[in-house]
Amino acid sequence: MTQTKEDALARRIAEYLHSTEGVAETFGLVMEGAGFGWAKCSMVVKESMTNGHKVCHGGVLFSLADNAFAWACNSRNVIAFAQSASINFISPAQIGEKVTAHAREEANEGRTGVYTVTVTAEDGRTIAVFQGLSRTAGGKVVEE
Amino acid sequence: MTQTKEDALARRIAEYLHSTEGVAETFGLVMEGAGFGWAKCSMVVKESMTNGHKVCHGGVLFSLADNAFAWACNSRNVIAFAQSASINFISPAQIGEKVTAHAREEANEGRTGVYTVTVTAEDGRTIAVFQGLSRTAGGKVVEE
Amino acid sequence: MTQTKEDALARRIAEYLHSTEGVAETFGLVMEGAGFGWAKCSMVVKESMTNGHKVCHGGVLFSLADNAFAWACNSRNVIAFAQSASINFISPAQIGEKVTAHAREEANEGRTGVYTVTVTAEDGRTIAVFQGLSRTAGGKVVEE
Amino acid sequence: MTQTKEDALARRIAEYLHSTEGVAETFGLVMEGAGFGWAKCSMVVKESMTNGHKVCHGGVLFSLADNAFAWACNSRNVIAFAQSASINFISPAQIGEKVTAHAREEANEGRTGVYTVTVTAEDGRTIAVFQGLSRTAGGKVVEE
Repeated sequence: MTQTKEDALARRIAEYLHSTEGVAETFGLVMEGAGFGWAKCSMVVKESMTNGHKVCHGGVLFSLADNAFAWACNSRNVIAFAQSASINFISPAQIGEKVTAHAREEANEGRTGVYTVTVTAEDGRTIAVFQGLSRTAGGKVVEE
Repeated sequence: MTQTKEDALARRIAEYLHSTEGVAETFGLVMEGAGFGWAKCSMVVKESMTNGHKVCHGGVLFSLADNAFAWACNSRNVIAFAQSASINFISPAQIGEKVTAHAREEANEGRTGVYTVTVTAEDGRTIAVFQGLSRTAGGKVVEE
Repeated sequence: MTQTKEDALARRIAEYLHSTEGVAETFGLVMEGAGFGWAKCSMVVKESMTNGHKVCHGGVLFSLADNAFAWACNSRNVIAFAQSASINFISPAQIGEKVTAHAREEANEGRTGVYTVTVTAEDGRTIAVFQGLSRTAGGKVVEE
Repeated sequence: MTQTKEDALARRIAEYLHSTEGVAETFGLVMEGAGFGWAKCSMVVKESMTNGHKVCHGGVLFSLADNAFAWACNSRNVIAFAQSASINFISPAQIGEKVTAHAREEANEGRTGVYTVTVTAEDGRTIAVFQGLSRTAGGKVVEE
């Protein structure tokens, strides 16, 4: 199978997952790209996403990163779930800012995958760095 | 200062933060209790909070836990921010389920605090376990 | 089965694991107690455990916490492995200090367990807080 | 300043830290390379590094990763400490295996840095993936 076929399938999986996600509309998530083992997801920070200090809620930044991670860890077309994740918050994201999560695969062995996700703002600063552990559950995400 | 005074202040802080959080309405967060070094926050899982597998999105569960953590780590009335957090997902939360996050302080030294947050469902099963690292920024959350 | 029987088995498991650990001698680990879902492990910081800043190496503190975690997550007599862990470093541990890790169970569902481990010094300050995710592999640790 | 000068300084820092680490001899750590924002550290798994299941102790793998992280996060010649770290264990490392940790910088803003460290075996499989958060304390590691 060529890289292109794998990437096309990965993109179709991300599009499928995106179309079924309840949070896609809640956060205004945009699929910016997806391929074999990677994915990009963006959103614009809105008032409805803020914490008590009036910057983007850490949980909403985590959600963005987790979403890119989900697309990436399902990109081999085996249903996978997040088991564990950690996030480091570097710089607050302000209302109105567009933030983009970029997930990439660090390791994939047996049923386990590890992905790093960086969340960046348009001015280039890093907002957060996330690492997720996935475990496959079996079954396909989409028909091949 | 008595425990009661500290707890009353902690509760006032949680109420204040809760009143200013943009996500409070987005997720339907309810303040279930707060005191010195601890807080409880609940929500009912809705369609708008789901992932592509139609269970509660990991990021939304993280948001719930992170919110209880924020109330707890600000409960000494010194403004504090999350620096880092990790979460382990144990059992999926279904649409319609009420889930409650309970944050409690593990350590507090100098500007640093560590909190464990357990997220449980009404049938008693654990949904997720979260650990957060906070750092104070100075300044008061509310007037004393 | 009474609490006492479960605790006695858990202690026997911890003693067995401790007797086979290569790091037990390397770090001078001492089993301070173990029961159903919990364990305590201590060591005295030595020159051979330091980092380049001449305080106890973070990896050695992690090892101590991880060891208490291993005893606790194997305490039901089903072989379990660490899948993921996070640690927050609060205060450095100096050469000559005795540090104690106390692991306790936060959740245990199906094959998955989550444990919090606090590492404290004799003067009462918290050195580190650890959280670990375990997964059972099947098989018994000791004969019952 | 050229890349070369920065890399040469980073290497000198790693060599200095390595020469003062008490664990260097304990674990037989080897400095495999270091530059601006990155470092590589290896060791061979020995009996003295095992857990109760007779494979490399998770804490010792963490120590290896943490050491590469320390060299990388001090590579700008500002003293930095680990604040928080997480690790995902992918595949056990056996006695006799050489394992190498490769730390690389994900983000560096103000006093905060985030580093990913992958630990791999000679047959190419990933043993563990680590992510660390560092914070600078001020002061230089070596004279410039």
